[in-house]
Amino acid sequence: MGPHPAVAAIRLAVRRVLHDILIEQTSPQPPVPTPAAAGSTAPFPRAAARPPHERAPSPLVLVACSGGADSMALASALAFEAPRLGVRAGGVTVDHGLQTGSDQRAAEVVQRLRELGLDPVESTAVTVGREGGPEAAARDARYAALDAAAERHGAAAVLLGHTRDDQAETVLLGLARGSGIRSLSGMAAVSGADGRYRRPFLHLDRQTARKACMAQSLPVWDDPHNADPAYTRSRLRHEGLPALEKALGKGVVEALARTAQLSRDDADALDAWARQAEDAVRDATGLLECAKLYALPPAVRRRILRRAAIEAGAPAGSLFARHIEEVDRLITGWRGQGVINLPGKVVAQRQGGRLVIRQG
Amino acid sequence: MGPHPAVAAIRLAVRRVLHDILIEQTSPQPPVPTPAAAGSTAPFPRAAARPPHERAPSPLVLVACSGGADSMALASALAFEAPRLGVRAGGVTVDHGLQTGSDQRAAEVVQRLRELGLDPVESTAVTVGREGGPEAAARDARYAALDAAAERHGAAAVLLGHTRDDQAETVLLGLARGSGIRSLSGMAAVSGADGRYRRPFLHLDRQTARKACMAQSLPVWDDPHNADPAYTRSRLRHEGLPALEKALGKGVVEALARTAQLSRDDADALDAWARQAEDAVRDATGLLECAKLYALPPAVRRRILRRAAIEAGAPAGSLFARHIEEVDRLITGWRGQGVINLPGKVVAQRQGGRLVIRQG
Repeated sequence: MGPHPAVAAIRLAVRRVLHDILIEQTSPQPPVPTPAAAGSTAPFPRAAARPPHERAPSPLVLVACSGGADSMALASALAFEAPRLGVRAGGVTVDHGLQTGSDQRAAEVVQRLRELGLDPVESTAVTVGREGGPEAAARDARYAALDAAAERHGAAAVLLGHTRDDQAETVLLGLARGSGIRSLSGMAAVSGADGRYRRPFLHLDRQTARKACMAQSLPVWDDPHNADPAYTRSRLRHEGLPALEKALGKGVVEALARTAQLSRDDADALDAWARQAEDAVRDATGLLECAKLYALPPAVRRRILRRAAIEAGAPAGSLFARHIEEVDRLITGWRGQGVINLPGKVVAQRQGGRLVIRQG
Repeated sequence: MGPHPAVAAIRLAVRRVLHDILIEQTSPQPPVPTPAAAGSTAPFPRAAARPPHERAPSPLVLVACSGGADSMALASALAFEAPRLGVRAGGVTVDHGLQTGSDQRAAEVVQRLRELGLDPVESTAVTVGREGGPEAAARDARYAALDAAAERHGAAAVLLGHTRDDQAETVLLGLARGSGIRSLSGMAAVSGADGRYRRPFLHLDRQTARKACMAQSLPVWDDPHNADPAYTRSRLRHEGLPALEKALGKGVVEALARTAQLSRDDADALDAWARQAEDAVRDATGLLECAKLYALPPAVRRRILRRAAIEAGAPAGSLFARHIEEVDRLITGWRGQGVINLPGKVVAQRQGGRLVIRQG
């Protein structure tokens, strides 16, 4: 008899990602996956893969585990698959220090990861600041700790347990910002420096992870933060998304996850276009020419304006669509406007058919 | 004393649209607003506007009015602004025949529009079919009737009362399809043959329209369909969107409306890129070359594949993202797959490095 279907599903998801990691370890580094420039038709740029066993020095893959169902399922699947593929498997749990007894909780998670056969396993304590709100501050501290652990152990990758449901929530959070398709593109399957972070469960639902834990009799811990209505994501999970499903049907989570992937590809392509078009719209002195900008599609022109504002020192996080629209009107609705003030003390103005964007 | 702020807001919105219509009437036809081809930097393509009074033969603008608050507000603003700009203003109400007494209701709306001073005013009865569900069938019948009325009267434009709230609902309905950014782009401010349909209130909220009716003592009719939970849009309006606002904050409607505009511009730019790239990836016999397709960004490649499938006879409405992904794997994950069946009896297969998509 084979494993429970949920267990089979989580193992398959992890196996695929380990395969990818092994192929990258044994192949010459593939070129950075920027989309080809507009109209370019260069032949196959991707390097051919070599069999994993050819030069693999038994890489280490870590799982980031909170002790919750998603990441415990991920840890169990990694513990099962890694030895079969000649990969060493370890685990890290981050103690955010936000609840009393969180250190003991972390020690328990370490114990459970060891029982799964992972090695090395460690708990790392962080101090959560306040910047960007409680959720963003906890996330920043967590990734910094995971980065440090990965480097300390020379890990080839760190697996994260985000599921399709997490992805749907992330898309809705991005939608609430109203800042365009990049913020609709959710979490990437591969992210971080050198593609360190991998999310094998991005196409699996939370229910599958939970079932896999039950089928394997793995104890899991439900973080009370996940049910705390003080957190936006928690409100979304327990009220917003269920109401949306009631109105629109059960396929909403899947639709949101697919929207993430499609938006990501679209945003990548348009960013590539903007990068390429930018050279063509600058004059000999490097200034942006208004007439040439005008002739570009608005989607491309606004990306160039955004890039120019960031380059001049505007912080990306404070630069909103309405700022870029105002700069854009210097091109499309010119009636002698004065200087436009942007975040980070950056100013934009039109001078003699050129756009000047600089720190004021 | 000036008018109530809500009345001022609806009048300003209509005045802007009437201005646009007059400029188009008196100017040489502007070029079709397709985004410039990738990398092209042709100088200003737009024709200069002439003052509205120069050759205007007093165009007629119709308002489509259900008798609800949004379209009654629109009708009142049109009745106020049109004579000031030398525009004739008329109205049409569509009797969908879906409720008993709908003919009487339509006659009442005609009466109210006449009282506002609109002329001509007419009621037009339609038979709603079943295709695509009750909401889509009613919409199709309504637009057919409005098209016919516009042509009968030689109207330059038909104004529609859709508000920012309607736009937000439309974006969420598109999101539920999960079919990419085109379906997130909601309703256009200008749409239909020759830009016949205009939506002056797309940036105004429903509350402003309602307040403007109250301030002008205009009686309005609340369509019971709008509160009927049998309709997806109604569930979204009364349950889904409020729950989302509770989770994400009051700015959600505005964020969704802004997402619509940004997505529309992005989708337009990528469609233009795909149209232009398509020529470069066909061989001398017109077949798509796999190696050249491979080198394109996924977002552009999938648009070319989608266009090719539709050209071969696949109905656009039945062609989903998963179909295109399967065809795409003939390019990006070639392992000797067989023929792929698409809707409309269209088949796709890879033959000798070429992609053949045709009716099977």
